[in-house]
Amino acid sequence: MTISEKALELHEEWNGKLEVVSKSPVKTREDLSLAYTPGVAEPCKVIAENPEAAYKYTMKANTVAVVSDGSAVLGLGNIGPLAAMPVMEGKAVLFKEFGGVNAVPICLDTQDTEEIIKAVTYIAPSYGGINLEDISAPRCFEIEERLKEILNIPVFHDDQHGTAIVVLAGTINALKIVGKQKENCKVVINGAGSAGIAIAKLLLSYDFTNVLLCDRKGIISKSSENLNSMKQKMAEITNPNQETGLLADALKGADIFIGVSAPNVVTPEMVASMAKDSILFAMSNPEPEILPDAAKKAGARIVGTGRSDFPNQINNVVAFPGIFKGAREGRATAITEEMKLAAALAIASLVPDEELNEDNIMPEAFNPKVAEVVAAAVKAHIQ
Amino acid sequence: MTISEKALELHEEWNGKLEVVSKSPVKTREDLSLAYTPGVAEPCKVIAENPEAAYKYTMKANTVAVVSDGSAVLGLGNIGPLAAMPVMEGKAVLFKEFGGVNAVPICLDTQDTEEIIKAVTYIAPSYGGINLEDISAPRCFEIEERLKEILNIPVFHDDQHGTAIVVLAGTINALKIVGKQKENCKVVINGAGSAGIAIAKLLLSYDFTNVLLCDRKGIISKSSENLNSMKQKMAEITNPNQETGLLADALKGADIFIGVSAPNVVTPEMVASMAKDSILFAMSNPEPEILPDAAKKAGARIVGTGRSDFPNQINNVVAFPGIFKGAREGRATAITEEMKLAAALAIASLVPDEELNEDNIMPEAFNPKVAEVVAAAVKAHIQ
Repeated sequence: MTISEKALELHEEWNGKLEVVSKSPVKTREDLSLAYTPGVAEPCKVIAENPEAAYKYTMKANTVAVVSDGSAVLGLGNIGPLAAMPVMEGKAVLFKEFGGVNAVPICLDTQDTEEIIKAVTYIAPSYGGINLEDISAPRCFEIEERLKEILNIPVFHDDQHGTAIVVLAGTINALKIVGKQKENCKVVINGAGSAGIAIAKLLLSYDFTNVLLCDRKGIISKSSENLNSMKQKMAEITNPNQETGLLADALKGADIFIGVSAPNVVTPEMVASMAKDSILFAMSNPEPEILPDAAKKAGARIVGTGRSDFPNQINNVVAFPGIFKGAREGRATAITEEMKLAAALAIASLVPDEELNEDNIMPEAFNPKVAEVVAAAVKAHIQ
Repeated sequence: MTISEKALELHEEWNGKLEVVSKSPVKTREDLSLAYTPGVAEPCKVIAENPEAAYKYTMKANTVAVVSDGSAVLGLGNIGPLAAMPVMEGKAVLFKEFGGVNAVPICLDTQDTEEIIKAVTYIAPSYGGINLEDISAPRCFEIEERLKEILNIPVFHDDQHGTAIVVLAGTINALKIVGKQKENCKVVINGAGSAGIAIAKLLLSYDFTNVLLCDRKGIISKSSENLNSMKQKMAEITNPNQETGLLADALKGADIFIGVSAPNVVTPEMVASMAKDSILFAMSNPEPEILPDAAKKAGARIVGTGRSDFPNQINNVVAFPGIFKGAREGRATAITEEMKLAAALAIASLVPDEELNEDNIMPEAFNPKVAEVVAAAVKAHIQ
């Protein structure tokens, strides 16, 4: 039986990967009078007086909404809200199992930016955080930015920031091995959607200076035509030497390649044209931009992918559960740039120097320490 | 310690009465590849092809959204969405414990009819049913009607229909005891909000003919002034003799009083003016329209309240868990009038004739058979 067949069979057996269970018993009249009427009126009154008390008396404190419009689900594309449900349930499972955070999937039957913003604003009182998921670019940027302005709870688009954080963590560890300085590295990111742009921004925040972003048409520069507003903005802050050309041109002499694009777009020749001790994160899923063996054969020193069946899996699951856990424990009202950088450094630190090698730059997803260490780092940066 | 104090203490201890737990393990790489990527893509693809499959592979099948805008919460009034959370969590607890249905509170940060309709429409893909709760009249009528038209999942305003169903069940059993026929009974309902109007409608569906509805100004008739559109509609279908006057006038010669109004609005004199073998459901909570002892002393034969510390508790909890359980099991797309009548008859039937008496007209809320019997009755009436 293939993974797909087995997954389908199991999903039917589960009939929903989540269950909502009661923490309060209702076996007797007294139970009922405490968890429901008339006793429940008391916490209601206290919260009506002091909204802050919702964090003390309700599940808001520890519950995140996993919100998607189904427009950019995995590698499947725009499959809509109903078909996105299995992924959002899976995400909620990871929130709980790795971070101890309750999460509820909310798949929205609209792909209109303004309507999504309104819907999330309206449902926000019940939640302590909003995790946006699988919403296509460039709408995802505006949706996240606007919601961050409107709401006083953390809003986090995992496809952007979760990915950027794990990529930065992997990059930090890979650079330790090859012994290069970030200031001297040329980084090429292929894919200028939500993940690629967030990675570029976070690397710049971490003081990488020479970052190039490529889309299907090649290197993004100020002279590129027909850029959307986000790519225009990126053309201003990336590509300091205003290089032009295709991905192959960008990769000449590059130290680091980060792929969030499409299968097989990187050839062995391109890898061979990179600088010595090159690092490649080929994260297109399930088929990477180049297979690790081919990349190594062509001269790469360190290769990571999104897959669990190769070394160096670059996987969001080491980031988002701990980030929300820390934000919740510290009652953060937003996930800031400082918190993202701290999370990346914390993830990198989970591979001790003595265990660090070309095939071991990332912590294991199942290490129960991961979410704790990430949460502590995030909490330490709450203002 | 009072109930209020104890409830507050427990709510702090619970810090949310619900927990979201995973049914799928993620202890190994293989687990992760089945519950999440890459395996999860398979159910997504199947649902994208055939939306119906969401009921097979996701939690939609067995999850209800408990939606409120916090505008009419318990007897507390318009306390807003955040302060409504403890009640909605409590409701969700009852859904699970009594009906086996997963329920998620969604408290909306808007009290605009159109915006509520949009928000619920947008979140609907994740849910198999919508339970509207504590939304003030007359907005609740339009919100429910419009959502029923738009959505292909059951939409149920429990304050209306849950209450109407349990009142009808109690009325059916009370009439068995006093030996009167519904066609010959004069019924007076005090309170023309969501519950009162729904009760009037359901009694008329069940072939009661002489039903009078009173609001704060007295009996609603075609000559009443300044009625909202719903009360105007009720003036057309209730009060066949077009009586006018105050509640006291309405109660003269009445067989049944149903109060969903305010404490102490019924006097012993009013009860004494009713017909022989009168039935009173004084459901204002926690202070009834008249206390059972006073009503009995004034001549009432059967008295019910909303409280658990008096006999004959008229409590929604015997209705909604079974209704949604049945709707789910039978994959109903709506809760119809037939299903409501069937639920009321099923609830009434749970008190066997030999156990029926003036102080025992309603089944016990904790009887595990209740939800099963109600669900079976509802299922039998799914078209």
